[in-house]
Amino acid sequence: MSALLGSLRSAVGAAHVLTEGDLSAWEQDWRRRWRGKALAVVRPGSTAEVAAVVKACAAAGVAIVPQGGNTGLVGGGVPDGSGTQVLLSLQRMDRVRAIDEANLTLTAEAGCVLQRVQQAAAEQGLLFPLSLAAEGSCTLGGNLATNAGGTQVLRWGNARELCLGLEVVTAQGEVWEGLSGLRKDNTGYDLRDLFIGSEGTLGIITAATMKLAPLPAATTTALAACATVADCVALLKLARARLGAGLTGFEMMGRYALQLTARHFPALPRPLPQAEWTVLLEHSDIENEAHAREAFEGLLGAALEAGTVQDAVVAESLAQSQALWHVRESIPLAQAQEGPNIKHDISVPVSAIPAFVEETDAALLGRFPGVQLVNFGHLGDGNLHYNVQAPAGEDSRHFLAEQEHAVNALVFDAVARHGGSFSAEHGIGLLKREELAARKSPVALQLMRGIKAAFDPQGLLNPGRVL
Amino acid sequence: MSALLGSLRSAVGAAHVLTEGDLSAWEQDWRRRWRGKALAVVRPGSTAEVAAVVKACAAAGVAIVPQGGNTGLVGGGVPDGSGTQVLLSLQRMDRVRAIDEANLTLTAEAGCVLQRVQQAAAEQGLLFPLSLAAEGSCTLGGNLATNAGGTQVLRWGNARELCLGLEVVTAQGEVWEGLSGLRKDNTGYDLRDLFIGSEGTLGIITAATMKLAPLPAATTTALAACATVADCVALLKLARARLGAGLTGFEMMGRYALQLTARHFPALPRPLPQAEWTVLLEHSDIENEAHAREAFEGLLGAALEAGTVQDAVVAESLAQSQALWHVRESIPLAQAQEGPNIKHDISVPVSAIPAFVEETDAALLGRFPGVQLVNFGHLGDGNLHYNVQAPAGEDSRHFLAEQEHAVNALVFDAVARHGGSFSAEHGIGLLKREELAARKSPVALQLMRGIKAAFDPQGLLNPGRVL
Repeated sequence: MSALLGSLRSAVGAAHVLTEGDLSAWEQDWRRRWRGKALAVVRPGSTAEVAAVVKACAAAGVAIVPQGGNTGLVGGGVPDGSGTQVLLSLQRMDRVRAIDEANLTLTAEAGCVLQRVQQAAAEQGLLFPLSLAAEGSCTLGGNLATNAGGTQVLRWGNARELCLGLEVVTAQGEVWEGLSGLRKDNTGYDLRDLFIGSEGTLGIITAATMKLAPLPAATTTALAACATVADCVALLKLARARLGAGLTGFEMMGRYALQLTARHFPALPRPLPQAEWTVLLEHSDIENEAHAREAFEGLLGAALEAGTVQDAVVAESLAQSQALWHVRESIPLAQAQEGPNIKHDISVPVSAIPAFVEETDAALLGRFPGVQLVNFGHLGDGNLHYNVQAPAGEDSRHFLAEQEHAVNALVFDAVARHGGSFSAEHGIGLLKREELAARKSPVALQLMRGIKAAFDPQGLLNPGRVL
Repeated sequence: MSALLGSLRSAVGAAHVLTEGDLSAWEQDWRRRWRGKALAVVRPGSTAEVAAVVKACAAAGVAIVPQGGNTGLVGGGVPDGSGTQVLLSLQRMDRVRAIDEANLTLTAEAGCVLQRVQQAAAEQGLLFPLSLAAEGSCTLGGNLATNAGGTQVLRWGNARELCLGLEVVTAQGEVWEGLSGLRKDNTGYDLRDLFIGSEGTLGIITAATMKLAPLPAATTTALAACATVADCVALLKLARARLGAGLTGFEMMGRYALQLTARHFPALPRPLPQAEWTVLLEHSDIENEAHAREAFEGLLGAALEAGTVQDAVVAESLAQSQALWHVRESIPLAQAQEGPNIKHDISVPVSAIPAFVEETDAALLGRFPGVQLVNFGHLGDGNLHYNVQAPAGEDSRHFLAEQEHAVNALVFDAVARHGGSFSAEHGIGLLKREELAARKSPVALQLMRGIKAAFDPQGLLNPGRVL
C-alpha cells in the first residue's frame, strides 16, 4: 500500500493525498448515515491526474470511490469501513471550461458546484435549468453520475436530458474524449447515457458539455388549493394545455406536510391554510411580465370556474415567488424536526397518482394505525416524496427500527402494481441495492452485470454500489 | 437449415416465413443501393413470436437482420448476399397498444408506421412530434433503432428524447420488459438509451412508450432571406430568444438547392428568388393564431431592422405553410433529378457552421473546380445535408466513382476539425462502418465492442453493422 500511496503522491502532489487528520468531510455522508474509512482521500486537479490515479489503483488492485459534493442520499459516495478504498474527490476540478453562446452550450469540469454552473450561464444572459435543494454544494459530475432531477424536470428533463457530451476516465485509466456540443450524433452506441446515472461504477466523469437556454423574460409563481389528488392531476392537464413549455414547475404538497412547515417555520407564508392539497405552479414566460400574469390568471380563472381549484394566489413580486418556493423547499427540514421518518422517492405514471395515493394511504393507515403521511413532490414528473412518519406520541426511532422494512415493502409493492419506480431521482447507491436486486427484472440485471463486467472487469470502480 | 425453417414456421406460422418468390421488398433497400438474399423473411406477429424466432436462430447459429419500414439510408436493414441470414420484419407488429392522456404517453409496437403513431395521438387531441420525410412508411421501431431525427428536433429532440421505455428481445431470446411511462426512474444503468440507436445490433425493439404533448393552438411558417450563413445563425439566436419553445422549425436552404427545386418542380412557390440563403421558420403557439402571427411579425420586424434578414414572408394560411415546407422537402427529390450526388449528413456546433461552410466550400471548389454544393438542413440542430454534385457538364456517375472518397475525406476532416459528427441522424449501417472504425476514438470503440460482446456474444444480431 505504501507503494500505491507513493504513486498517488507523484500523480497529484503530496498535498492532495490525505491520509491523516479529520477526513470526515469525505468519509461520512452529510446526513451522517454512513461513515467509512479511506486508505486515502485523493484530490486530482486535472483529467490527466484522474487517469493517473485510476491507473495506479488498477495496478495495485485497489478500489476507488468517486465523490463530488457528497450530498447524495443513498450512500453512493462514501468509502466502506475497511480502510482499503481510495476516495477520489473531484472537487478541485471546478473550472467552467467554455461557454458557447451561439450553440447554447457550457462545458464544465465535474467538480464544478451546480450553483456556479447556473451563475456562469446567467452571467452570459443564459439559463442552465438544473436546480435542486443541494445546488449550493452538489457538483455537476455528481449530478450526472446520479442523473439528478429536481424542480425543473417537467420542462427541462433530468440531468441526462441536459447533457450533450462527457469526458470520462475509464476503469483502465484511459480518457474517453466524449465532450460534444452536438444535438445530433448517430455514430455508434450511446456511451454518454450509459455513464450518466451509473453512480461511478462504470467510469469517472471528469467534465461535461451541457445545454443552455435563453433566460425567460419573466417568471411567475402561484399556489392553488385542490380538494383531491385527482383535481391536482386535472389542473396539471389544464396548465400544460394553456401554458405549454411555459409551465416550468408543478409541485404538490399535502396538508400535513404544510402543517409541519407552519409548525417549525412560523415566519413562512401560508396563504391557503384550509387546502387539502396545495399546488405550486411556476410559469416562465419568454415575452414579458404582463403576458406571464395574463396567462397565469387565465389558467387559474378557468380552473376556478371548472371547480378544479378551490382558491388560488399569484405571487405579486419576485420576493413573493421565492417565499412560495421556500415553503416547498422547507418541507424536508420541517419533517426532520419531527425526528427521523421513512423516506420514499417514488414515481408512477401521472395518471396513476390519484389511485396510488388513495390505496397506499389506506393500506398504511390500516396496517400502521395513526401513521402520518408527509406527501409532497414533483407531481408533473409523477415523482412523489411519499414519506411515512411514526404515529403521534410514538418514538420515531423505535418505529423506524421496527417497521421500516414492512412500510417499504408495502409502498414499493404498491408502486410496482402501478408501473412505477422505487427510486425516481435519488438512485441506488448502498441504500437501495437490495431493492434493485429483488425488484428489477432478471433480464435487466443480467444485461447490467454484462456491462459492468465489460467496463470494469476488476470491479474496482465504486464496488458494492448499484449492482 | 431445414430444421431451422421448421422451427421458424412453428414459431410464427408457415404463412409468415417467406422463402420463395419476389422478396425484394425486404431484400433490397428502397434506394436500390444494396441488394441481399435472405435465408427466409420471417414476419412475427407478437413479442413472444419474436423471442421464439431469436431463440431458434440462436440455437442454429444463424444471423438475424431486423427490419422496420426499410427506409434507411445506410444499408442497415437488408441481409447480405449469402442467403444464410434471417430477415426479421417487424411490420406485422403494428398495434398502438395504449394512449395515456393524463400521463401524455403512447405505447405502440415496433412495426407501427410513424404516421399512424402521429394520427393516433392527434385523434386524442395530442401531438407526437417526431416527423421526417419517410413518415408514411418508416416504423417506430426503426426510428428508435436508428435514433431518427427529422424536422422537429430543435424543439423536441431526436427519437431518443421522445422515448420513455422499451420492450426488447435480447440476443438470447429473452424479453426485457422495459416499457415505462415514467419521466424519472433511476434504478440502474440506462439500457433504454443503449438499445436506442444501436441499429439492431444489441437487441430487437418490439414496442416503446413515447412522450406526447398538447397540440399547439396555431402553427405558422415563414421564410426569411439572409445574405450569409452567419446571418442565419444570428437569426436563430434572435428567434430562440423571442419565441422560446415556440420555435419548432429552423431550416436553412442554399440558393443552388432552391434553384434545383425551381427547375424540377416549377409549380412550387419561390417567394424569395434572390436570396443567397433562405431560412424556413416554424412557430407553434400554445395560445392562438393571432398571438402566433404577432410574435412572428415582431421577430421578423426586429430581424429586418437589425439587417439580419433582407426580406421575409409569413404564410397566410395552413395551405401556404404546407407549400413552404413542401419546398424544403422537395430538395432531395430535385437533386436526385440531377443524377447521383455525394450525400453528407453532418453536424457541427451551431456556432461553427459559418466557418465550416465557408472553409469547406472553398476547399471543395479549389480541389474539384466547378463542383456544385447542394447545402440545406436543420440549422437549429447544427445538422446539414451538405451534398456535393458533379461540375456542370460532367457525368455524375463518373464523378462519384472517381471522387467520392476524396470528397468524403475532405468534408469529414473539416467536420472533425470543427468538433462535428460525420453521421448526424442517418446512422452507420454498412455505409459508414469504415468511417466509424477510422474516426471514432479507440477508447470509444473498445467500450462499444465490450457492450456488443456482452449483449450478443455469438454476434448474430445484424452482424457487420455499426462495429
